[in-house]
Amino acid sequence: MDILLKNLRPLGQETCDMEVRAGRIARIGKDLAAPDLPVEDCGGALALPGLVEAHTHLDKSLWGMGWREHQAGPSLRDKIDNERKLRKEWNIDPYRQSMRQALLSLGHGSTAIRSHVDIDTDCGLAGIEGVARTREELAGQIDIEIVAFPQSGLMSRPGTLELMERALQGPADVVGGLDPCGIDADPKGQLDAVFALAEKYGKPIDIHLHEPGELGAFSMEMILDRTRAHGMQGRVTISHAFCLGMPDRDRARALVAELAEAQVHIATVATPSRPVPLAEDLRAAGVVLCAGSDGIRDTWGPYGNADMLERAMLLGLRNNLRADRDVEHAFWCCSGAGARVMGLAGHGITEGCTADLVLVEAETVTHAVVSHPPRRLVLKAGRIVARDGKAVQEAP
Amino acid sequence: MDILLKNLRPLGQETCDMEVRAGRIARIGKDLAAPDLPVEDCGGALALPGLVEAHTHLDKSLWGMGWREHQAGPSLRDKIDNERKLRKEWNIDPYRQSMRQALLSLGHGSTAIRSHVDIDTDCGLAGIEGVARTREELAGQIDIEIVAFPQSGLMSRPGTLELMERALQGPADVVGGLDPCGIDADPKGQLDAVFALAEKYGKPIDIHLHEPGELGAFSMEMILDRTRAHGMQGRVTISHAFCLGMPDRDRARALVAELAEAQVHIATVATPSRPVPLAEDLRAAGVVLCAGSDGIRDTWGPYGNADMLERAMLLGLRNNLRADRDVEHAFWCCSGAGARVMGLAGHGITEGCTADLVLVEAETVTHAVVSHPPRRLVLKAGRIVARDGKAVQEAP
Ligand SMILES: [Zn+2]
Ligand SMILES: [Zn+2]
Repeated sequence: MDILLKNLRPLGQETCDMEVRAGRIARIGKDLAAPDLPVEDCGGALALPGLVEAHTHLDKSLWGMGWREHQAGPSLRDKIDNERKLRKEWNIDPYRQSMRQALLSLGHGSTAIRSHVDIDTDCGLAGIEGVARTREELAGQIDIEIVAFPQSGLMSRPGTLELMERALQGPADVVGGLDPCGIDADPKGQLDAVFALAEKYGKPIDIHLHEPGELGAFSMEMILDRTRAHGMQGRVTISHAFCLGMPDRDRARALVAELAEAQVHIATVATPSRPVPLAEDLRAAGVVLCAGSDGIRDTWGPYGNADMLERAMLLGLRNNLRADRDVEHAFWCCSGAGARVMGLAGHGITEGCTADLVLVEAETVTHAVVSHPPRRLVLKAGRIVARDGKAVQEAP
Repeated sequence: MDILLKNLRPLGQETCDMEVRAGRIARIGKDLAAPDLPVEDCGGALALPGLVEAHTHLDKSLWGMGWREHQAGPSLRDKIDNERKLRKEWNIDPYRQSMRQALLSLGHGSTAIRSHVDIDTDCGLAGIEGVARTREELAGQIDIEIVAFPQSGLMSRPGTLELMERALQGPADVVGGLDPCGIDADPKGQLDAVFALAEKYGKPIDIHLHEPGELGAFSMEMILDRTRAHGMQGRVTISHAFCLGMPDRDRARALVAELAEAQVHIATVATPSRPVPLAEDLRAAGVVLCAGSDGIRDTWGPYGNADMLERAMLLGLRNNLRADRDVEHAFWCCSGAGARVMGLAGHGITEGCTADLVLVEAETVTHAVVSHPPRRLVLKAGRIVARDGKAVQEAP
């Protein structure tokens, strides 16, 4: 955890050295000497704070299982049902697959992951247990937060709520939910249950909200009401929030103002094929926008590679960000914003911060985003965890 | 130009060998022997036909010029004026920059490029001459088609039409145009001039059409009228065609039907921040959709890397293509479709085709699109022109 890094450029500033002690950035300066420390010459590389994968599904990737043709039908329900079927048929083991994806993430410089993990009456807590085992094995290399996620429905599948309780008594850190109208057809029931669980176990909330337009706005207002009523300001995230991409920009901005006031965060994938929350609206209002890959090569679709620098590029392209300072904001969404949402103290690249660092060959932060080159070195709290795009530890 | 390729999988089919003679695929089969030929072991790599960069601007990239902060204002006019100014201030040399970008493309497996090249009363034909010199120096490595492109306006800048004539008497292959309403405010004047040039010099047409909604539809209909009147079916391309992404899907589909009937092609960048032509609508109607990077790291914006496999991924994401056969169509848009639009005979990966080949480590075509891995080997008419992601020839 102690190391002297020579010749790096934090966020593209002038070349300097960095002394890491006890997992933290102890000193940044020119020509530092620390004879007791191992030395790593960074060759003038750009240094970035650790990337944060703030929305993914570690339990369901098919990574490393050989190419499998996509099978799901077009609707959300088709995809959910197809997945439940193939999980068994294809033996998508949550431990093995989450290890593979987490190490893939690490190779791309993500030092923290918030993962939604399926809970349903078919698989029970097997997903949660598998991802918890991965978290344990990778402790000290990558932070993993587990969202108990009722993918197949909470109210519409009796028995799921009890499983959610057990997950939250165990390894789950966050209460999940999804489409209270679209999936459960019981927005009051689902949202009351989700907020009750959060209160009972003192845990934050992260809800998938794919519902478009006015339907999504309706659910979002119900989430906002409950956030205020339960005093959950700053502890609720809405993932996707496609409704904020509605054509009526005034209506969307009024919702954004409410989100800001209730300190509700938004997680996005910057989906190019859907209306999405506009990064500039959220930024102007002061709403934290974090980002993630969502599913990576799973039964939902073939895309994804766990590269959060490429995600920053997609976020920039989706929002038509061209000026360097705007692309730097897209980078922050894929790094510092995720750390804020996950409550990771000490994230950053100044003295005193945790030494979660990513080194790449690039001139500036914007250059790193648009070129998303292989990660030369990744450090977690000062420990070298990946080199030349690959995690040091082998995946199972 | 003669080579025996061992152990490759054309489009993901079973492992085989390929005998290349006189620049063409002479034989495909198991355990081929050809003692007179040099042998290259492809190690089981996936073989794809050459990628085609069907819409870019070789004369204006800043690649290799060091990182420069983005400066342009938000409007199309801001970007055009900013570029004309910086072209001189920054010495964006069309020969040097087109060499750099063309070799970058080659490293990513593009074996053909259609490039729009600026013509205006400031730079005259300097851009055209620079790109023509690159084309000559890279002859046999990459096919380059030059579109004479009146970026700053055709009717609104007296003197430009005469420059266009000279370009078409010289190295230009295609007559360009742009936004006849938005830029020239003279749709009849610009389009009559463009079609007259095409007729006079017997050359095809490629028009940038950024105009949205009904304005773009209006210009598109004027292009369609002239395509029919001049008998230019199959020889006109409309680039971007954002108007086809208009919310009124019935109106857009009626335009698509007209495009199909007049055999007008569409070139897209799959811009995530704009309404774009829907790949599935065009495909269903039989309209050829080719694709390109547009500007690569230029004064218009920082994005782009000349990777047409990544472009296929963006096209897939923009159109929500998930099934393997649909992602394979996105690949075709970035390969065979561009060859069709450029009139390149013999493009393909069967016996008799030109041996323009790209080898990557991937299981299937869809796998190659979603992972867009480094190109292991690129051949142009049987000649090895790039290896491990880099063109054999050094850029200036
Ligand atoms: Zn998700
Ligand atoms: Zn263009």
